[in-house]
Amino acid sequence: MKTRIISGLVMVPLLIFVYLGGYPLLAMCVLIGIIGVKEFYDGFRAMGINPSLNIALASAFVLYVINGLAPGNFELICAWFAGSIMLSSLYMFKTTERTPLDAMATMIGIIYVIFFSFHVVLVDQNEVYSVLIWLVLLSAFCTDIFAYFSGYFFGKHKLCPNLSPKKTIEGAIGGTLGSVICSGLFGYFVVPSIWWHCLIMGLIAAVFSQFGDLTASAYKRKMGIKDYGNLIPGHGGIMDRFDSVLFTAPIIYYYIAIVLM
Amino acid sequence: MKTRIISGLVMVPLLIFVYLGGYPLLAMCVLIGIIGVKEFYDGFRAMGINPSLNIALASAFVLYVINGLAPGNFELICAWFAGSIMLSSLYMFKTTERTPLDAMATMIGIIYVIFFSFHVVLVDQNEVYSVLIWLVLLSAFCTDIFAYFSGYFFGKHKLCPNLSPKKTIEGAIGGTLGSVICSGLFGYFVVPSIWWHCLIMGLIAAVFSQFGDLTASAYKRKMGIKDYGNLIPGHGGIMDRFDSVLFTAPIIYYYIAIVLM
Repeated sequence: MKTRIISGLVMVPLLIFVYLGGYPLLAMCVLIGIIGVKEFYDGFRAMGINPSLNIALASAFVLYVINGLAPGNFELICAWFAGSIMLSSLYMFKTTERTPLDAMATMIGIIYVIFFSFHVVLVDQNEVYSVLIWLVLLSAFCTDIFAYFSGYFFGKHKLCPNLSPKKTIEGAIGGTLGSVICSGLFGYFVVPSIWWHCLIMGLIAAVFSQFGDLTASAYKRKMGIKDYGNLIPGHGGIMDRFDSVLFTAPIIYYYIAIVLM
Repeated sequence: MKTRIISGLVMVPLLIFVYLGGYPLLAMCVLIGIIGVKEFYDGFRAMGINPSLNIALASAFVLYVINGLAPGNFELICAWFAGSIMLSSLYMFKTTERTPLDAMATMIGIIYVIFFSFHVVLVDQNEVYSVLIWLVLLSAFCTDIFAYFSGYFFGKHKLCPNLSPKKTIEGAIGGTLGSVICSGLFGYFVVPSIWWHCLIMGLIAAVFSQFGDLTASAYKRKMGIKDYGNLIPGHGGIMDRFDSVLFTAPIIYYYIAIVLM
């Protein structure tokens, strides 16, 4: 449990970047995207699949340049998207050295790590609701922390023993409730006019936060690794810390875009 | 060569749907997307990877519903996109039966077949330049036909022997020139005010048309299949006929959206 708490505290400095928003946050997202995709690809290499980090970096570069030139232009983002998939496809043309799996892993890294984490920037750029950037982290971390303690004290029934043996149904419920309460309180004190939207976002994001966590576990299980890295000694890599955020960021962003805007 | 010509003629009835545009074309795109993704997934099954056709069909359904409710809303398309990737991720949670590769193949099918072919509808929906839908097919088929005959008569130097042994550099050049000429002529007679844009589109689309063709070949090679199906006896499946169009459709669409609009 001690490790878990220290692991949580390691995240605190990052909150400064979230508080600052704008370029510092953008820089952090780029950095997390780059380190994250590298860790993800290293995981694939452990299972004999060799994605192209260069294509992912070029793709990330273009995405952030597009966003700098035309923030929030989703037609351009879709163009970027199609372009990245096509570029990754070219990677498998050298059939003597590479297989479609190498190209596919490249594509998934671009979507799952770079595109998903980019939504943190999109939330921050929102002209009306940029403060909801906090919900991206709050929902992910509260789910995680409350799930851990609920499971620790009340956990009896396994959630998915094959995928993540330590997780319990009690933990999942506790985590979800924790996220709903914290997100509701955040809404009540920070954006009272939409406090119940925050509650709903806390609920949906809690569910997807756990999907994000389990997705990372499913990849790692097949890759045969326990952690994606050891950037923070004893606490795994960037991808181990941000697996939930990768899913909560798009959820919060599209909730704002579709329901609130 | 006779087979090749008949194979080309098989496409003629499809031109009626392109001419009609609107709902008939949309219905054809849905049908091609569904059959195409099924063929693509069957190819994966041949290499021991089991994508979920149900997820792909659900994803296609949602995409076309979104487009019906809010045509050309790319923010919603990105939301659809993130949702499809997350939904496909859930597929690998049953670790006793499935692996991340099954989920990844599901994702790639959704992007490569359904999302890419959807661009045909997007071009057709364009309020100003919907006539350029013809360029999507013209560039793909002219590249294919001219490459074939150029290669047949002048082909000496292999283009990429390991990937697609019959293709020659002379064929690639002839195909590209053929597409440029036909697209330029199309522009000159149909949309004279932007004829040289048509010429440029013919050039870019010709290059990507060949990338599309080679991408399909690279998948098939690893899957250990010669054709994706035999829907049209002797002429392969939908994916064998439309592999180039999957790449030319996004290219033409984003050229229109970014350069012409």
